[in-house]
This record gives sequence, C-alpha cells and structure tokens, in this order.
Amino acid sequence: MKTILTGIKPTGQIHIGNYLGAMKPAIEACKLSQDTSYLFIADYHALTATHDKATFQEMVYEVAAAWIACGIDPKKTVVYLQSDVPEIFELAWILSCFTPKGFMNRAHAYKAKIAENEQNGKKDLDFGVNMGLFNYPVLMTADILAFDAHEVPVGEDQIQHLEFARDIAQKFNNNYGETLKMPNPIKKGEAKLITGIDGRKMSKSYSNSIPLFAPEKKLRKLVMKVKTDSLAPEAPKDPEGSLPLEYFKEFATDEEVKIMLGRYKEGVAWGDVKQNLFEVMNREISPMRQVYDDLMADKSSIDAVLKEGASKARERSQDVISRVRMAIGKR
Amino acid sequence: MKTILTGIKPTGQIHIGNYLGAMKPAIEACKLSQDTSYLFIADYHALTATHDKATFQEMVYEVAAAWIACGIDPKKTVVYLQSDVPEIFELAWILSCFTPKGFMNRAHAYKAKIAENEQNGKKDLDFGVNMGLFNYPVLMTADILAFDAHEVPVGEDQIQHLEFARDIAQKFNNNYGETLKMPNPIKKGEAKLITGIDGRKMSKSYSNSIPLFAPEKKLRKLVMKVKTDSLAPEAPKDPEGSLPLEYFKEFATDEEVKIMLGRYKEGVAWGDVKQNLFEVMNREISPMRQVYDDLMADKSSIDAVLKEGASKARERSQDVISRVRMAIGKR
Repeated sequence: MKTILTGIKPTGQIHIGNYLGAMKPAIEACKLSQDTSYLFIADYHALTATHDKATFQEMVYEVAAAWIACGIDPKKTVVYLQSDVPEIFELAWILSCFTPKGFMNRAHAYKAKIAENEQNGKKDLDFGVNMGLFNYPVLMTADILAFDAHEVPVGEDQIQHLEFARDIAQKFNNNYGETLKMPNPIKKGEAKLITGIDGRKMSKSYSNSIPLFAPEKKLRKLVMKVKTDSLAPEAPKDPEGSLPLEYFKEFATDEEVKIMLGRYKEGVAWGDVKQNLFEVMNREISPMRQVYDDLMADKSSIDAVLKEGASKARERSQDVISRVRMAIGKR
Repeated sequence: MKTILTGIKPTGQIHIGNYLGAMKPAIEACKLSQDTSYLFIADYHALTATHDKATFQEMVYEVAAAWIACGIDPKKTVVYLQSDVPEIFELAWILSCFTPKGFMNRAHAYKAKIAENEQNGKKDLDFGVNMGLFNYPVLMTADILAFDAHEVPVGEDQIQHLEFARDIAQKFNNNYGETLKMPNPIKKGEAKLITGIDGRKMSKSYSNSIPLFAPEKKLRKLVMKVKTDSLAPEAPKDPEGSLPLEYFKEFATDEEVKIMLGRYKEGVAWGDVKQNLFEVMNREISPMRQVYDDLMADKSSIDAVLKEGASKARERSQDVISRVRMAIGKR
C-alpha cells in the first residue's frame, strides 16, 4: 500500500479559491484512494513569516478546522501538525549535513527574495531573509522523508522541492546504504485557478476573495458584488467569461447549469443570477460552515483530532528516525 | 544558583594537549563550583564533517569515556549527548526563523571555508559547504538557549557564537516578550597551548601528539621521542624552552620540579629526564587510563551515564521548549 503525503501551509483565512482549487480535489482523492494518506499542517513553515502569536495560533486552528469541515476523514487520513512531530526537526538537522549549500542558493523562494531585493536597490541582497526561509527546503525534505512517503502530490512550483528531497535522500543512501525511501512526485493537474469577484485572480492580497466560511449574510453580499457587464435584464447574456457563471458551474448540478445557460440566452437580470448563485453556494457551504463554526467555537475537538493524528504520525516517524540514527552510528 | 553550560565537539583521539588545555581545567572548575553544570557532547555538530558510521560512534564514546575517566562527576554535572535532546532541534528550527541570514554569512567557520575555496581558485565559493556547516551557529544557539544557561565558558574563537546566541534570544524576546534567558560568555583564560613532541603546536594533523590514553609502552616510547637539544649528559641544560621540562611541570609536584631544575643546572642525561617525565605522567594518567579502558571495553556504563544525563537534561529543555511554544502560539 502506498503512502501519500500532503502538506498544507497555513496562510490565514481560507477562500473559495483555496477550497475549489486545492482542498476539494485533495479531499475527494483521499476518499477514493485505497492508500494511506498523511495530511499535515506545516505550522513551523508558517513561522518563517508569521511572528504574531495570536495570528499564528488562529491560522493553524482555521486550517485544521477547515479541512475537517470540508470532509477530510481523520479515521482514514492521518491529520497532524508538523510541530507535533519532533523527529522531523532532528531529521532536518541530520539531512542538513548532507545538503550542499548550493541547493539552497538555487531554491526558488530564496531566489525570488534576492531578486526582489535587487530590484528594490537593496545593497544587502539577503535583506529580510531569515534562516527559516533559507532552510525551508531542508525542512520540507525532512517532512517527506520522515514518513517514508511514496508519493507527494505537487504543483509546478513544488517540483524543485521534491528534486531536493530525492537528491538529499540519495546522498544519504549513497553514504550509508539504503535507509531513506525515495519519494515520487505526483504532478497534480493544473490547479483550478479561481477568479476573484473583481475579475482578477482570487487572492487575499487583492481583497477580491470570498472567504469560504463567511456568514450567510456576508456571503450573499459578496456574491452580489461579483463583477458583470451592465446589460439590461432582458438582453441576452454572453456565458463566455461571465464570472457569476464561472462560480455557478462549481457549485450547481449539471441540470442547474443547463437551465442557467438557457436563462442567459433568453436574457436574465444579474440580480436573479446572483441570488441563484448564492443559493447553490450556500447549499454546499452551509453544512460545512456549521461544522467549522462549531469546531472554532470549541477547539477541543480540533485538538483531539490533531492529538490522535500526531500519535499515529509519530509511530511512523519514530520508525524512520530510528533507522536513520542507526545508519549514522548515533549512540 | 547559576547554570554553566559547556559543549564538547568530539574530534577523535584525545591527546594530552586536549587534556591539559581544556579538560583538566574544566573538570577542576566543575568540582569547585557550587553552580549547576551541564556538559554536553555535540555529536550532531560532528556530523557536519564525519560521515563514517563507525568513526562517528567511536569518537562519541571516546570523548564520553575520556571525560568520565578524567574525573567529571556525573552526579554533580549533567553529562549528555546533544542528539539525545530532541528539544534542541525543534528550538533550532524556531530560532532559525528569527536569525537573519546575514549572521551566518559572517560566521567565522563559514568565512574560513569560503576563503579557502577562493585561495584554491574554486569558482563555486560554497564548494564543499553543507547546510550543517552553514547552520551550525543556529544549532549552537539552541544548544545554549534550550538550557537557560547563565554562563558559557568560551575561548576567543567562540565569542562570536555567544554574540549570535544573545542577538537571536534578544530578537525573539523583543517579539514575544521575555522568554529566553540571555546567556553570558565567560571568557576562559588563554587556553594553555601545549607543544607537540616535535616542538610545533600539538595537533593530530601534525602527528606530534601524545594520545592521553596511549598504553604505557606507547606512552613511554612517545616520551622518549620528545625533542631536545643534543648536549652531552654532563652539560648543564637550559630550562628555558625545554620541552621535556614543559611537560614535566604539568604532571610533577612543585617539589619534583625544583629537584628537576637542580638536575638541569648540574647536567643530566636526556634519557633520565624523559624516564622521570614518563613516570610522573604515567602516575597521573594510569588510573584514568584504567577507567577509560574499562569503560571502552564495556560501553554499557557509558550508556548508563549518558542515559541518566539525557533524562536530567530533558527535564530542563522540555521546560524551555514549553515556554517557547507557548510564546509563539503553537497549538
């Protein structure tokens, strides 16, 4: 049986772009799969950038609650916090001794930061770079190798991390003999890019996103703001590039989409389209929102899930670290 | 009561230069002190350079056995392995998120390596640099801060590490409030530099050292090789810069030194001086060698000491990591 490992970096409020683009497909894949799935929240990765205590804690709970609310089954998938698995950090140190610094010099995130500093005319190209940011591909390697992961679903931007993980594992194995399992990248299909309510890419930084668990009233209000043209109600509408329709297709049944396309052809008021959109969205989100709100109101259930996940996760990471310690000759 | 922390990097066979220059003064200081002393073997630091399993394991046991044999009292001093304290590695990660990369760019060991590459005409100045080497001041910071160490005895070459540790602790505390204790460097007196048997600085790389636990015969043979002038036995000898006398002073009583100086003045055969030197050396070393050999023959007693040390050490490091986790808002 294969082991599939997925990491999630908490980034704050989850929006429907995150939900449709990443969470929903991942959760559906877990449900269908016969393999063992590990899903971890990379909280100590988030610590490279988030140094506010309350924000940090809240964003970790939010992401955990969101995945549970969206239907990840903790009985089937091991859901855990990176920071609850100390073996990862010990392994990260050990692996750092087998990681050429050149790898990190070439890491995308670091290079992007350097380029930004250069562009801003900074004399010190390492301005604002902390060692967490510089080291994080090593930690990511440990995240993966500590669980003997066979497969790691990756987007285009993470392929380099998998290459580092494989190269570092190889260097270790070349030196000590077969110890670490080689992880395989599973290229995810192009992640669905969801448009923001203003027509640009949905992103928190553009303030054009719809928070997944916005209260019903807020959700309706945001849906009403979705960008459209200004044709009169009776004028036929072009379905091509129509934003309300883009969202509608994500939440409605095929039958409902067919009917909506008919209304577009005939002419329909945008207000009606949006009311209909709100209804199908809320139909899907509402039960999840209820679970989410309950979890966030009493975090002990989240704690319980994470505690059980950590315990299952550590069974495996302890096995791996024992092998590694033995290999290097740790007393 | 103050906490004094000392780290030892295992480097292989211990010679009388290590013993006289570092171990003996440290052990005597521990004996006299009313403070709590922590002494750890930095085995995962050694891993940056030693990738041979058997060598790595042996060098860790050797250094542990040597310190016990030389009289460190594990009842009074907490003796432990760095690798037995997982809190150190978790803390190292957390602290890395508060460590500007610029600090590491300026670290002495890294800069020395860069300079060496430059001198050797390497195009890639990071040639041969692994991330363990690059990161090790962060790990050293965690080594210190994980134990609320008040004082860290440092030589000239380690002052920078203490400065990093203090700066990183300060950055963390500035962000989250007082959490980490500020460690103070205690400048050790100039470490006694012991001359090698050929007259150059004693160093394994010059093959001019006397292994502390060389068997009696070997010790005698090495003592007989100690460099002298070639004056005839009856000629008076100059005590100034005389190598056998330098060693003699380290092991003989004041009374014995006085007598030896008289014999130098009168004229004495080098063979006699060296026989006398061997005797005083062996008098001090022999009981320690016995303990050392017994420990190395049955390593379970070393294991027992390190196990108890790890358990005591972790009581403290767990307290520190709990405080740190709380401060950052770890769930």
